Amino acid sequence: MTNAIILLSGGLDSTTCLAYAKNQGFDCYALSFDYGQRHKTELNAAKKIAAHFNAKHHIFNLNINQFGGSALTDMNQTVPDYVETNVSIPNTYVPARNTIFLSIALAFAEVVNAKDIFVGVSYVDYSHYPDCRPEYIHAFQTLANLATKYGVEEGGIKIHAPLIHLSKAQTIQLGHDLGVDYAMTVSCYQANQQGDACGKCDSCSFRKKGFLEAGIEDITRYYL
Amino acid sequence: MTNAIILLSGGLDSTTCLAYAKNQGFDCYALSFDYGQRHKTELNAAKKIAAHFNAKHHIFNLNINQFGGSALTDMNQTVPDYVETNVSIPNTYVPARNTIFLSIALAFAEVVNAKDIFVGVSYVDYSHYPDCRPEYIHAFQTLANLATKYGVEEGGIKIHAPLIHLSKAQTIQLGHDLGVDYAMTVSCYQANQQGDACGKCDSCSFRKKGFLEAGIEDITRYYL
Repeated sequence: MTNAIILLSGGLDSTTCLAYAKNQGFDCYALSFDYGQRHKTELNAAKKIAAHFNAKHHIFNLNINQFGGSALTDMNQTVPDYVETNVSIPNTYVPARNTIFLSIALAFAEVVNAKDIFVGVSYVDYSHYPDCRPEYIHAFQTLANLATKYGVEEGGIKIHAPLIHLSKAQTIQLGHDLGVDYAMTVSCYQANQQGDACGKCDSCSFRKKGFLEAGIEDITRYYL
Repeated sequence: MTNAIILLSGGLDSTTCLAYAKNQGFDCYALSFDYGQRHKTELNAAKKIAAHFNAKHHIFNLNINQFGGSALTDMNQTVPDYVETNVSIPNTYVPARNTIFLSIALAFAEVVNAKDIFVGVSYVDYSHYPDCRPEYIHAFQTLANLATKYGVEEGGIKIHAPLIHLSKAQTIQLGHDLGVDYAMTVSCYQANQQGDACGKCDSCSFRKKGFLEAGIEDITRYYL
């Protein structure tokens, strides 16, 4: 079997991504980050999800809050409610987060001899994050093959972003077809300790809308 | 004044790089990593060097040893002596290290509104590390401008690698002209607590040869 790294936050997208990689026949190494996020609920979800899919699971400790700069890690900033007309990059954006996460996934890939890295970003519902666009993923793949011993000597490191052209509804449909139990996942930017969601942030709004559009029952628990 | 990030290990190259950036008129933010390296001597050197150049200094805690995989961070591997004919990537290579360091520098740049990142890699004496080549630096710059809010909205993030085409001797000559005191720097892969060098590893061999070729007195203290 061929090894693959899957970035697993414990949310809806990354869980679908793991199910997808598993379905493609990869031996999956799930990688989560303890990065100073506001709540550990999603990390607990990630643990259960990795076990459910029989994937090896590594939680990497990395406090990106050492600089501050985002409402998702900085306790002094407020997570904004979703506003439909918002077209600029929101304050929930964490500086260079996907680049940092993919870089560490690349190191992990080299150590476990994996040439395939899966990341559950979507261009459609990317909420104006620059590091969720196809051209970004493509640029990272180019870099990965120049950057590493494995890329240079063996070639062909591939960054898979299977959800990149899917709407939230299409992602949910895909996961549903793959048998994903979305009750295990946590998407909310400010979930409580039980994993219940606020229902108001960007992430909750996209998720709610997705289930509605997919015509699949939304089993998310909301505390508001 | 314009802010710049300078990756500062406390070694000869990164110190020359800091002197160069300072000389170019940048307001310098030096960034060092406490990444589980074998000795902290170079971090202590970095602190003194940053202070000497009147740069702000941030030490980022990041244990890349969480995966293992390199003689520079894995205590179970032996640092090899320098062998002239060695053409493959050596075991002192740390998987994806420069990519991880540059990613974090990119986040730091975004937080302090810097568009310029300096890294002291050299293609000439790169010791077969893939992530010290010009095409790698170019690929990272492309990525940086796609990856970040700052790159997308403001444009023009630049990765400066002023030493990339310089030999060690030329780097030493440049630093010498800029008034760098190389007694402050530590290059050795296995320096002792006093900052004295082994004189035998790849890094020591390049440094020795560099001073010799530049015709500048080598004031490095060796313990062997």
